This record gives sequence, C-alpha cells and structure tokens, in this order.
Amino acid sequence: MKETITRKKIISVIGSASCDNTTLAIAKKLGKRICDNNFRVATGGLGGVMEAVCMGAKESENYSEGDTLGVLPTYDVGIANKYVDIIIPTGLGFARNTILVAMGAVTIAVAGGAGTLSEISLAYQLRKPVILIDFAGGWAKKMSDLLKRSDFLDHRKSSPIKSVSSIDEAMNHLNNTFKTTRNYKLCWS
Amino acid sequence: MKETITRKKIISVIGSASCDNTTLAIAKKLGKRICDNNFRVATGGLGGVMEAVCMGAKESENYSEGDTLGVLPTYDVGIANKYVDIIIPTGLGFARNTILVAMGAVTIAVAGGAGTLSEISLAYQLRKPVILIDFAGGWAKKMSDLLKRSDFLDHRKSSPIKSVSSIDEAMNHLNNTFKTTRNYKLCWS
Amino acid sequence: MKETITRKKIISVIGSASCDNTTLAIAKKLGKRICDNNFRVATGGLGGVMEAVCMGAKESENYSEGDTLGVLPTYDVGIANKYVDIIIPTGLGFARNTILVAMGAVTIAVAGGAGTLSEISLAYQLRKPVILIDFAGGWAKKMSDLLKRSDFLDHRKSSPIKSVSSIDEAMNHLNNTFKTTRNYKLCWS
Amino acid sequence: MKETITRKKIISVIGSASCDNTTLAIAKKLGKRICDNNFRVATGGLGGVMEAVCMGAKESENYSEGDTLGVLPTYDVGIANKYVDIIIPTGLGFARNTILVAMGAVTIAVAGGAGTLSEISLAYQLRKPVILIDFAGGWAKKMSDLLKRSDFLDHRKSSPIKSVSSIDEAMNHLNNTFKTTRNYKLCWS
Repeated sequence: MKETITRKKIISVIGSASCDNTTLAIAKKLGKRICDNNFRVATGGLGGVMEAVCMGAKESENYSEGDTLGVLPTYDVGIANKYVDIIIPTGLGFARNTILVAMGAVTIAVAGGAGTLSEISLAYQLRKPVILIDFAGGWAKKMSDLLKRSDFLDHRKSSPIKSVSSIDEAMNHLNNTFKTTRNYKLCWS
Repeated sequence: MKETITRKKIISVIGSASCDNTTLAIAKKLGKRICDNNFRVATGGLGGVMEAVCMGAKESENYSEGDTLGVLPTYDVGIANKYVDIIIPTGLGFARNTILVAMGAVTIAVAGGAGTLSEISLAYQLRKPVILIDFAGGWAKKMSDLLKRSDFLDHRKSSPIKSVSSIDEAMNHLNNTFKTTRNYKLCWS
Repeated sequence: MKETITRKKIISVIGSASCDNTTLAIAKKLGKRICDNNFRVATGGLGGVMEAVCMGAKESENYSEGDTLGVLPTYDVGIANKYVDIIIPTGLGFARNTILVAMGAVTIAVAGGAGTLSEISLAYQLRKPVILIDFAGGWAKKMSDLLKRSDFLDHRKSSPIKSVSSIDEAMNHLNNTFKTTRNYKLCWS
Repeated sequence: MKETITRKKIISVIGSASCDNTTLAIAKKLGKRICDNNFRVATGGLGGVMEAVCMGAKESENYSEGDTLGVLPTYDVGIANKYVDIIIPTGLGFARNTILVAMGAVTIAVAGGAGTLSEISLAYQLRKPVILIDFAGGWAKKMSDLLKRSDFLDHRKSSPIKSVSSIDEAMNHLNNTFKTTRNYKLCWS
C-alpha cells in the first residue's frame, strides 16, 4: 500500500514587478489569505506584486518561516525582495518562469505584464489550474476578458483557467481545486 | 577597431503542433520564403507548423544543409520531425520555449496554442521583435486582434509586435527589422 | 543605508542515489547536524544519500517544517523522497544539478557517482565553497585524494574545496565559511 | 516501416577557455579532423579550446557553413567567438553545460578546468560516450589517469569513457562509436 505523504502545498503567484498601490494592496491581501489557508507562496522573488504577496503572507497568523519562496532569474540572491524566506537563484534567465509555475499546485495571476502572460500559458501547458484576479488590470484581467466563453487556452483543455472577482472567490476556488483528482501526465508528441 | 562578423541570421518560427492543411500550407510557404531570404529557421522541432516550416525551408532554392534547427523539450532526438537538420535536444521541458525564442533574431508566430502564446510573451521579454501571421487563426490571430491599438505587450515597450496579413508583408517587415539598431540589454529589477 | 536581511542559509548536500548502510548513516547524521546548526538542507530530492540527509534533518531538535528542500529533475513530484518538505520539480533533467548547487551557500558531498562529480564542479564554477566527506567513498573521496596538494579544481581558484575526516570537522568548517566575506561575481569571458 | 533519417552528427568538444599555444594547436587540429570526418562540432562558443576547435573546423576541405555551433551561457551573442556559425544563446548560465553535451552524439574533452569536468560527468549521465585527449593536460588528462583501471565514472556504467593518445586514435574511436547500437534510455530513480 502506498503511503500518503502530506506536504504543505505551494501556490505560485505571478504578477507585475511594478504596479500601483491598489494592486499592491490586493497582492498583499492575497498573500495573507493564501497563508491563512495553510499554503506556501512562490513568486518570482522580485518587487511589486511579488514583494507584496510575500509581505502579506508574513502578516498571516498562520505564517511560519519558510512559507515564502522566491524563484530568481539570476544566481545573485541580492535582487530578492526582503520578504522571501527561501531564495531559489536559478541563473536561468526567463526560463525561470517555467520553474516558478512548475513549483505550484495552482497559479494565481494578479495584474501583470508579458512575464505574467508567459507564466499563465506555461502553467496551462504544465496542466496546472490557473486563477485570474480580474479586478486588478494587467494580463490577468485581459486574459479573463478573452476567456469569457472558455475556460481553456487552447483545444487541448490542459487545465482550467478561472476568473475571480474577489479574493474570497479566489480562495474558495483554490480550495475546491484540491477536491478534484487530476492527471498531470505530460506528453510531447 | 571591432571586427564585424557576418552570420546567417536565425528566425524563430512558433506555432501549433497540430493544425489543418491551410495552416500547414501557410507555414510551409513561410519556411520557404524565410530561407529564400537567406535566413535559417528555428522551431520547436516537432509536428504541425514546426514540421511544415522546416519542410518549406528545404524547398527553397536557397536552402543549404543546416538551415533548419529544432529545439526539443526532451533529450530524445527521436521525436524531431524529419525536416530538422540540426537537433538541439535540450531536456529542459517547457523551459525550452525560452531557448527557442532566444535563438532567433526575430520570432514569427503562425496559428498556435498555449505554447505559442508563451513564446510570444517570452520573445517580447527577451526584447526580440515579433511578427504575428494574422490569417491563420490561433494565438497569433488572437494576439493580433488584441494589440490593434498597441504594438507592445506591456508598458515596458520591450520590443515591437507587428501583425501581418500576408507572407509578403511578413518578409518585408522581417527585412526592415534589421535596418534598425536596437538595444537588447536586459535588466531584472 | 542598506538593510540587512537575515535568512536561514541553505546547505546543498549531494551524493549517491543508492549506497550502503554505512553511507546512509553518515548522510543521516550529517543532515541532523546541519539542521542542529540552524541551516536548511537542499538535495536532489531522490533516494540514497538525498533521502538520508532529509531524514536526519527531521530528527534534529532544531528542525522546523520547510527545512528540507528537494530539487527534482522532473515535473513529477511523485519521485521525491518522503522526507522532502518543499519540492522544486524543475523539469530540467540534469540541468537541475546546477540549480541544486546554486541554491546552497555551501555544497557538501557524501560518496557519490557521476552526478555528484558534476555538482562538485558546478558548485566550484558558481564560486560556492565545497566540503568533501572523505570517509564514505565515492567521488567525494576520490576528489579529496586528488586535491591533496590543492584546494582548487583549476587555476581560477574559484572557491575553496575542503576535505574533512569527520562530521564534526565538516560542521566546524561549514560554520567558519560564513566568517569570510567572499566575492560571488561571475564572469563569462 | 520506420523511415531512416540521415543527419550530420554533432560532436561536442569541451575544453579550457584559456590555454597555451600547444593546446590551441591540438584543439584546432581536432576541429579540422572532426569536420574532415563529416561531423559538425558544438562547443561552449567562447575562447581558448572552444575557439580553436571552430577555427580548425573551418579549415577543413569538408567544412560547410553551419558546421560550428556555439552554446552560450548568456543571451548576449556578442561573447561568441568569431568562428561560430550558429549561436545558441541559452541564457541558462552554467546549466548550458548540460545542453552542450546533450547536443553531441559523442563528447571529446581537450585539457579543461572545472567546466570541462562538469561536462565530462554530465555527458556520462546522459549516456553519451566520452573521449579524453590525454596529451594536453587539464581535466581530460587527470580523468584519463584516474580511469586507468576503468572505463566508467561510476557503478552504473552509463557510457564508456575512452582515453586517446593521438588525434588519429580519437578519430578512429569516434568512428567506431557509431558502429555500436546503444540504449540512451534515461531513468531518474
């Protein structure tokens, strides 16, 4: 009989490196709520949404040291924001975007530019469910509008992409995600 | 005085692994025209658009052996299409998408699902000009529609994204791209 | 004035995926002592030395959840050993060896085959100090013998490689490493 | 019936970025001979042995444009040596070492420091045959001495490592390698 291993799940949060205060407040609240719900957060480790999410996580009563992960593009750890507990200095450049979404059981997008767009599509290819915060602009919002009539990025229906209009809805959806068994089997051809 | 080195430039072509015959014909013609214009083509090395582009390149009178490059996600070279001359079996999984667009001086998108979408956004982050074929559907078309009022994926204006309505227009634009000097300096923070 | 951020440091431990019980006992003790000294451990996340190190860490009185990191070659988290708290499923194949040593402030080698040998040399290139356990055989021992007259892998003297004859010596050396300021500036040409 | 595709094979040559003139002459001659034998060469794309091998290839009567490949650690193509025809600017840092040996059917080591050592061991893990030039010093020579009593880096006997005392012997061995069918199946656990 296969033993069941219980690990704290990781949620990858992706979003803008620079953004306005409203977006930062949303990201911070999201980070706190993720941690309240007993998940770890992984981000790209830099500023803006990435920093706010980590800051928020640390304000959760449920936070424990090690809950914030930062997946950097460089080997230099000095560019990480100060709320990252565990730095993963990949040295992979933009290929680190793939690692970031591979780490999370689910990816949540807040605002975001081209980097976030690449991560939404990489998460989908990796068959990871994606949640789009639709009230903070950026590519999370643009993609949310685009997908109005579809939960999927292409005909393969690799993983569901869900738009949410509040952080409560994001958290409900996040928790529901883990009630469904999914097949993560990848295949190249 | 710095010596000038003249190398055959590489054009990265991204697109669907499975698609209809109309799209395949477009991809094939595109591959031929790229090679006619004395460029190499790099693709993801698999089927569909990737295969048709390589096949087309080989039909160019200007083709020479070594003009078709395939950047595979696996170490296994056996999954490459038969028109790839030079296989780069990265073993990097989806992180190979980044390598593919990093190799090209310009990226051209034909149709395409989520993989293509990730590559458009990664090319942009890498400050590579992107050309979207707007008459073969897929994410190349969707992105073309989205960007109607903008040539850029985000406020950083990292590199121009241009929609084209014919292969002639694609080739004109491609050749013009090299008349402009651009700054490819990347910065993380 | 630049703020000082205090993070728990990560020690990368590299070693055989399959080995005898003596080696496993050494690896386990090493994992415990690393955690006793208030470091996290990162390994390749699989069996043998990697598993024993994580198991040992968990037996430390100083252990807290999140102290064991496993950097996998696959996207599939199912191959991680059960003592890994935080899985980093890179999907990068053997390129993950580079990430593993990049994560640690210091790399410690226990026994080990070709994978360990690649990691010793990659750590050195990344200018990370390396500690070789010289009493458990494998490439840690072979390299220790080779370097008898030198602390360096090549003329660049990128980082010191130190052989140790006991776990106490390893821990003393590990703690001393952090008393020296070092320059991690990398340069390609 | 499966169609047989005949492609020019790639030989990965690894070695020192800086070295004396004797070593450069050996590397250059090796590059020429590889090309004479109708192979392409892939190197790390920088100076020293990498440059000399590419230069040599270009002096072969059998050389055709596209025969020299350079797998760079950066996105910046400006650091490639001028004899590289096709630049692969991975942006992967030292993880590019893995890509370089993955590209070649066989890896040949000339002199070399820690980078070469990592590539010898990564090639072995990737089940690629390795040829060590034993008369130009560096890690190729050190490893050749070490392996006197064994063709393998560890108990897994993943791929044969052969020391050679002349370039003629290297070329004979290289050509013989392709007469044996080998199993490149990789497995992580």
